[in-house]
Amino acid sequence: MTAKYTLILLRHGNSVWNQENLFTGWVDVDLSDQGRAEAKRAGELLAESGLKPDLLYTSRLKRAINTAHIALNAADRSWIDVQRDWRLNERHYGALQGKDKAQTLAEYGPEMFQTWRRSFDVPPPPIEDTDKYSQAHDERYADLGDKIPKTECLKDVLERMLPFWLSDIQPSLKSGKTVLVTAHGNSLRALVKHLDGVSDEDIAELNIPTGIPLVYKLDENFKPVVAGGEYLDPEAAAAGAAAVAAQGNKK
Amino acid sequence: MTAKYTLILLRHGNSVWNQENLFTGWVDVDLSDQGRAEAKRAGELLAESGLKPDLLYTSRLKRAINTAHIALNAADRSWIDVQRDWRLNERHYGALQGKDKAQTLAEYGPEMFQTWRRSFDVPPPPIEDTDKYSQAHDERYADLGDKIPKTECLKDVLERMLPFWLSDIQPSLKSGKTVLVTAHGNSLRALVKHLDGVSDEDIAELNIPTGIPLVYKLDENFKPVVAGGEYLDPEAAAAGAAAVAAQGNKK
Repeated sequence: MTAKYTLILLRHGNSVWNQENLFTGWVDVDLSDQGRAEAKRAGELLAESGLKPDLLYTSRLKRAINTAHIALNAADRSWIDVQRDWRLNERHYGALQGKDKAQTLAEYGPEMFQTWRRSFDVPPPPIEDTDKYSQAHDERYADLGDKIPKTECLKDVLERMLPFWLSDIQPSLKSGKTVLVTAHGNSLRALVKHLDGVSDEDIAELNIPTGIPLVYKLDENFKPVVAGGEYLDPEAAAAGAAAVAAQGNKK
Repeated sequence: MTAKYTLILLRHGNSVWNQENLFTGWVDVDLSDQGRAEAKRAGELLAESGLKPDLLYTSRLKRAINTAHIALNAADRSWIDVQRDWRLNERHYGALQGKDKAQTLAEYGPEMFQTWRRSFDVPPPPIEDTDKYSQAHDERYADLGDKIPKTECLKDVLERMLPFWLSDIQPSLKSGKTVLVTAHGNSLRALVKHLDGVSDEDIAELNIPTGIPLVYKLDENFKPVVAGGEYLDPEAAAAGAAAVAAQGNKK
């Protein structure tokens, strides 16, 4: 297979709620200082790699937007075109948004906890519109109308992300652009599942570390030339993925 | 006249070269710490005003891009759509790019200096493609081909900015969006000249201060309801405009 297209995935750096071990989802939490440092390092890795993104896609959440901005500034490419879209948002975590992960684990037990975190098709309970962590009245999603999620499983994320991949990102790659997608653990897992053809079962074990660019060289059929892509800093990526997998076990 | 559309203009904050009193033009110089503080203040003014931009237009220069990012973060609206376009860039300052303003004044005399700075239709000498401050080989302008400027007067800026105003910004206003344009002294002077119908002579005396949002309420024919628009901090704007007018006199 010959590499024809270059796609770079970047999961946002550590956020304030990552540090506090809370479920975040669509709550618009900013990066922590650590997350800002990760974003800067991601930009430096990009610059060192010689990869030159021409076009940026981000979610509508500031932890992804700020990660992209810091990284592109560090790579001296803040001038590239950008498109923000809710379909790259993190999975909506339903009624768990704003809840402490360790407390949720203690309250519901490891099986339920792991099902909500990693099952393909079981969403957490839906969030009430009146919940302070609901986005039902957030103007940035006003154009979604009734389609605004109240909870999502990974399957739901895949089903809303995939049409955007097909309608927007794939054509941009086809036009010859090097594309950077700065998004979230679960929107990127959904994309990786599609690209690599990961099964519904195996995707549970796939963890994407924060702040390390993951490069996919794709052939003319948008199939990865190297399965799973290649991290720009493989050692840090392995350590980061292990840390993500261990989440919820923090006391 | 009834206000129908809302347009917000924001000149980027103080840059590193503003501080060093150098002609900048298309050279991609970053904000100074003072410029970052101005951008943050601009975002706070926006938030206090209750104005809610839905759409951002910036130039392809990082001092405008970073001003917008900092301001929108401060106003908690970094999630809005953004379009970057070279037609909002600062005036290309030709062979003067990178030159010291006071030194240029001393070398060429006040008349020539003021002509280059403020005449409507006399551009500075063109920059050589081999000059270290030329953008002839900058990939971000590759799509311009031979149209990339080697120098510009304000008339040239108006002639490249106006088609973008008509093709992109005006239709966005018409669709009901509150539009924020974050750009430069001369691209914004060109836009203000058009909006207010300022004469070729009078535009020489019009100075736009850095970092203070200038709000135009426009009627259905895109005519300003209040001539000259309204600054969100009028006192600071008056002081800032006077400071811009005095540039070049610094020792």
